[in-house]
Amino acid sequence: MPRTPIEYRNASAELRAVFDDIKRTRQVDDVNNFWKYLARDPATLKRTWESIKEVMAPGALDPLVKEMLYVAVSVTNGCGYCIASHTAGARKAGMTEAMFGELMAVVGMANETNRLANGFRVPIDPAFMD
Amino acid sequence: MPRTPIEYRNASAELRAVFDDIKRTRQVDDVNNFWKYLARDPATLKRTWESIKEVMAPGALDPLVKEMLYVAVSVTNGCGYCIASHTAGARKAGMTEAMFGELMAVVGMANETNRLANGFRVPIDPAFMD
Amino acid sequence: MPRTPIEYRNASAELRAVFDDIKRTRQVDDVNNFWKYLARDPATLKRTWESIKEVMAPGALDPLVKEMLYVAVSVTNGCGYCIASHTAGARKAGMTEAMFGELMAVVGMANETNRLANGFRVPIDPAFMD
Amino acid sequence: MPRTPIEYRNASAELRAVFDDIKRTRQVDDVNNFWKYLARDPATLKRTWESIKEVMAPGALDPLVKEMLYVAVSVTNGCGYCIASHTAGARKAGMTEAMFGELMAVVGMANETNRLANGFRVPIDPAFMD
Amino acid sequence: MPRTPIEYRNASAELRAVFDDIKRTRQVDDVNNFWKYLARDPATLKRTWESIKEVMAPGALDPLVKEMLYVAVSVTNGCGYCIASHTAGARKAGMTEAMFGELMAVVGMANETNRLANGFRVPIDPAFMD
Amino acid sequence: MPRTPIEYRNASAELRAVFDDIKRTRQVDDVNNFWKYLARDPATLKRTWESIKEVMAPGALDPLVKEMLYVAVSVTNGCGYCIASHTAGARKAGMTEAMFGELMAVVGMANETNRLANGFRVPIDPAFMD
Repeated sequence: MPRTPIEYRNASAELRAVFDDIKRTRQVDDVNNFWKYLARDPATLKRTWESIKEVMAPGALDPLVKEMLYVAVSVTNGCGYCIASHTAGARKAGMTEAMFGELMAVVGMANETNRLANGFRVPIDPAFMD
Repeated sequence: MPRTPIEYRNASAELRAVFDDIKRTRQVDDVNNFWKYLARDPATLKRTWESIKEVMAPGALDPLVKEMLYVAVSVTNGCGYCIASHTAGARKAGMTEAMFGELMAVVGMANETNRLANGFRVPIDPAFMD
Repeated sequence: MPRTPIEYRNASAELRAVFDDIKRTRQVDDVNNFWKYLARDPATLKRTWESIKEVMAPGALDPLVKEMLYVAVSVTNGCGYCIASHTAGARKAGMTEAMFGELMAVVGMANETNRLANGFRVPIDPAFMD
Repeated sequence: MPRTPIEYRNASAELRAVFDDIKRTRQVDDVNNFWKYLARDPATLKRTWESIKEVMAPGALDPLVKEMLYVAVSVTNGCGYCIASHTAGARKAGMTEAMFGELMAVVGMANETNRLANGFRVPIDPAFMD
Repeated sequence: MPRTPIEYRNASAELRAVFDDIKRTRQVDDVNNFWKYLARDPATLKRTWESIKEVMAPGALDPLVKEMLYVAVSVTNGCGYCIASHTAGARKAGMTEAMFGELMAVVGMANETNRLANGFRVPIDPAFMD
Repeated sequence: MPRTPIEYRNASAELRAVFDDIKRTRQVDDVNNFWKYLARDPATLKRTWESIKEVMAPGALDPLVKEMLYVAVSVTNGCGYCIASHTAGARKAGMTEAMFGELMAVVGMANETNRLANGFRVPIDPAFMD
């Protein structure tokens, strides 16, 4: 499929409405490549942005924790783009280098112990059933 | 391999030292199945516990955030035991149901957008290179 | 290991027989890098090609659906080479940009709901047991 | 977190509106466990259902192809619940046993060749760059 | 799809030929569930068995190492059936409990450091390019 | 976070002690990028190195088998850095091209049959329960 981003200046009114909302919500001058590539499929662009906006808004968890969770998933999946963009997002939201170091340590250990639990075929403790 | 847990009463002095440290650190009466199964390999038991204890200690990130990161990784990997035990751990550390709901929402979205970034083959923005 | 492709002109008679069959079956002038690299291990090259040829032939599912399934798996695994080559294959088999957009939307949602099912630990409905 | 499903009879008006829409759209008498467990977090239930409904509607791809893509992703991720529910969904949408057999064959091969491409470190052919 | 195994006594001549070859090659009285379920799709059964037989035969690597590699992949993917069957296979091929413990330790560490490499975004050393 | 490696000449005494131990243990003149990037978080560097050193030491499994297991996991996870560095490590420990070919063949097949077991929802044989 045409693998070129759609820039704001070439975007339809429908796409611009989404791009404008991203820029306003995130207070940035331009949207990331992620949105410019998704713009090839306007329905996916719109639905994804609306979901992300709802999910990443402050709530019971603060935005920094949410960004670090995003990094944890992206690192586990090995998604290069996502690691880069959400590490930047977490940093912008206040992640210090010490916090990043601990984040990596936890993600690494979780991936290790996930496999130890699999390999030793550990049955779930009754106390954890609920 | 013999897939039976090693209970405290049958554990060697070496294993008991690890079990005792787990019980003391976590203030629990007995250790989870995870440790009882790992006990089949005392070197792995000891090394894993020492790493976990260091990594999950309070630091730049608080214990609740660390437990939620653990859940995020375990859910992404689909590790049933780990999801059960660390959801319990996060709850014990203060996770409310609203926090759990948002945690799941973020983990779900991150897994979705990780694939959208892969599929649309989005190149990393120069700003995220560093 | 020597990470260089084996080109047709340097290939043994055994390798050329496989390369010729790929070219004839797919009606292409040259084989992709995938086959030139696998050629380092002739047994794996031959076995893999014979399996792929059998699996991807028209049958109960048409070739376009098979290529899109290949993209779905490759995007989920984050295999860059496979995403690129099978997106090209699907396009050649008739995938339009609208179809690609919907393919990505389904793959994204499936990866999201897979994790929601994991995280909420949803038990299988009795009706789905069979 | 309380790991019990929310049944229709105990659901709030807000949840019932979503459950009713699922039942109407899918023409079923009751919703699956997936929705009853997600109901613990009404915002995630509503957002997920609205996305699924949009994504799985007939479009450039027909519903059967979409269900088979869902199975392909779920099998790759090893999500037991999702494999069971979407295999049932695909069967309901017309998947025959021969189609299921070919679906599995493609998913298996794709997972194999994804790793061969990784392990032989195959560079992307210039023709696949776009 | 009908999720019931096909037993030898109910198998067609075509299926019995594969079952007989498995029993002869592995010197067992009956085949595992894996083969009885795959038998629903005779083409996949036959192709998969022929590939497995070729791949797992003694060669440059001995059968025990091959079985342990199978366990390593299955543990990483979290495939319960495959962990159980290939752990049994490795044990039959000579894996001791000490070897199992070290296998798990390596698989765990590899999964941990894979994520650390992802998260710290470590560029490949020039010496590893070839 | 600052994505630049810490070279030996700029390293603190604490980091140099780890770097020196890596160089001595592995008999190399300089450490890999992996360690130079991890050095941003001295606690993670130290803990990871000590674990790797213990896990990869000769024991019930020889170092070549351990390196091949590392490659198997890294290929399954699609970790580019880890595939490159541990393929080099395995080669240094004695892996021939024929061994590499068989390693890839086993890893590929394991990833394929893991998905067939998932998709056909094969129940664990009673004999494999222990």
